[in-house]
Amino acid sequence: MRVGGRVFRTIWPDNEGATVQIIDQARLPHEFEIVSITTVGEAARAIKDMQVRGAPLIGVTAAYGLALAMREEPSDANLEMACAALGAARPTAVNLQWALEAMRRHLLTLPPAERGRAGFAHAGAIAEQDVGLCQAIGAHGLGLIRAAAARKQDARVNILTHCNAGWLATVDWGTAMAPIYKAHDEGVALHVWVDETRPRNQGMSLTAWELGQHGVPHTIIVDNAGGHLMQLGMVDLVIVGTDRTTASGDVCNKIGTYMQALAARDNGLPFYVAAPSPSIDFLILEGIGSVPIETRSELEITHITGLAASGRIETVRLSPSGSKAVNYAFDVTPGRLVTGLITERGVIAPNREALAKAFPDRIAKVS
Amino acid sequence: MRVGGRVFRTIWPDNEGATVQIIDQARLPHEFEIVSITTVGEAARAIKDMQVRGAPLIGVTAAYGLALAMREEPSDANLEMACAALGAARPTAVNLQWALEAMRRHLLTLPPAERGRAGFAHAGAIAEQDVGLCQAIGAHGLGLIRAAAARKQDARVNILTHCNAGWLATVDWGTAMAPIYKAHDEGVALHVWVDETRPRNQGMSLTAWELGQHGVPHTIIVDNAGGHLMQLGMVDLVIVGTDRTTASGDVCNKIGTYMQALAARDNGLPFYVAAPSPSIDFLILEGIGSVPIETRSELEITHITGLAASGRIETVRLSPSGSKAVNYAFDVTPGRLVTGLITERGVIAPNREALAKAFPDRIAKVS
Repeated sequence: MRVGGRVFRTIWPDNEGATVQIIDQARLPHEFEIVSITTVGEAARAIKDMQVRGAPLIGVTAAYGLALAMREEPSDANLEMACAALGAARPTAVNLQWALEAMRRHLLTLPPAERGRAGFAHAGAIAEQDVGLCQAIGAHGLGLIRAAAARKQDARVNILTHCNAGWLATVDWGTAMAPIYKAHDEGVALHVWVDETRPRNQGMSLTAWELGQHGVPHTIIVDNAGGHLMQLGMVDLVIVGTDRTTASGDVCNKIGTYMQALAARDNGLPFYVAAPSPSIDFLILEGIGSVPIETRSELEITHITGLAASGRIETVRLSPSGSKAVNYAFDVTPGRLVTGLITERGVIAPNREALAKAFPDRIAKVS
Repeated sequence: MRVGGRVFRTIWPDNEGATVQIIDQARLPHEFEIVSITTVGEAARAIKDMQVRGAPLIGVTAAYGLALAMREEPSDANLEMACAALGAARPTAVNLQWALEAMRRHLLTLPPAERGRAGFAHAGAIAEQDVGLCQAIGAHGLGLIRAAAARKQDARVNILTHCNAGWLATVDWGTAMAPIYKAHDEGVALHVWVDETRPRNQGMSLTAWELGQHGVPHTIIVDNAGGHLMQLGMVDLVIVGTDRTTASGDVCNKIGTYMQALAARDNGLPFYVAAPSPSIDFLILEGIGSVPIETRSELEITHITGLAASGRIETVRLSPSGSKAVNYAFDVTPGRLVTGLITERGVIAPNREALAKAFPDRIAKVS
């Protein structure tokens, strides 16, 4: 998508497949910087430090990380070691494991001498597949926004989103944002309520930034405000992403998603989850208690980083000294609160039967 | 309550009734500073700039502000002008209007020469009444915490709260925190989950600070985390305050309260609101659309102030330039989501009949 008028993806190979370039998302929205990743260790570090984040992009970055590992040392042992290192970088998003396993299976069939070049090619294919999934989700979600627009007649459609499931969370287009970009691009009058998404503020830092760069009308709100806006009729639908959705349609996503879903339900509003099938975990039925929930540093809550009046990026402490914080990064929205899962194969009801019917190939692989 | 071992109130008269002293809450938790208020203009400014905040404390500060106005010029005209200036400082808390009206009625019966001294005496009486209300709420709420402790047997009771309804929001003791202080002081094992309460972070800055000063175990969480903790059985009950509760039990309180109430309901957990009767507006039945909701500066969302590593208090920008924010300060939790209102007359069901039965004197004044 566009940044200052120029088209970017979040990740791309460079130097004839010797390095990988990423947008350093930890510096957004105040600085736009491209970073080169040259080793598997740097790839794992970029995932862990959230220079790249978003379930689909984490998967693609891990795939490129394995490709870099094969450039360094294409042995089976190094492949397994690299898979373990990358797989441990973040625990919740299932795409990470999915991408690593796809790469691993492919590379193990090849002689070591071919693994360097083949790794890059396969990671590139996974990246292209991600773009295709997002575009398909965009097309299916577009229908939902068009329908909402028809109901609103002349008024613009108000869409609330949480965290960043935009193009920055993927290779391009985004998941939850793909329908919004498609609708905006074809002239549907819409406006996005952007939850700031504490504690890391991905909504404020990333979603607002990418919507602004693309020219989509939007307003930042605190996470606390969603329910109030819904009560007043100022939200027409909610679209969020997912880090892992279970086979029965329970949705693990950024902490606070569950509370937005409760508010949508209480106000009779549709709550959609954009879920590319690599983010669906057909091995798990119940979300609560089964999906591992990452606990991150309390410093993400007690301290915050922003742009000081001096123009410098500064970190300030918000909490009283002596008070502890705990930082759960995700929660689970039960499928009963979800109106539909926007997948690359259409909008699917959040239950076991509908998901199994839409993805028989994924179910077959499990059993 | 205690600050560094010394007992404080949030507001007290000084200089033989010539000035009023307050704790400057806008500087907490990083700096503890006492400020002198010497004019009605300074009192209105302290309310507007949230050096004092919390519905009960706003009311008491306004009462002292009127007293200061009467010291300056005790005419009827100045009394009305001072009422108007103070009444316009914050729109949502009904205590402000309640305290001003109580002062006004009292002062108008007196000859101007007596109004200076009488104003201070009457404001002092309103402050003492607030302490009494909070202590009574503490006693009634203590029973709820004791009962929860009995159900938990050896484990500690986990109480979630939103914003600051502690002693800093009142003259002393607090509303939602009064039962917690009483239970803690008598040895009930408890722990408080403190919602940070974006955008102004009164939970992180004030509730955590005052709990820490008093030695009550607590952990700061982002507002997004309440639902997740409730799903996992890590919350036993919720107690919050209120800025205005309607005659039918709809609760206007800090933005995000409604979403915590939805999460409590979805997880079968009790959700209590500490509501001293001056915060109950018997003139309004339905909360949504009837209680005026303050819209504050977007800078409270896009920028934040904290303690830099240099030791200086710094403000940093969080949002991308060009993105707007909107800042609704309160929301309404429908009475159907409230388990009980903890008032000075006991725990009352959140409906018109129960409230009318408990406060026949307030109803009579309305009709």
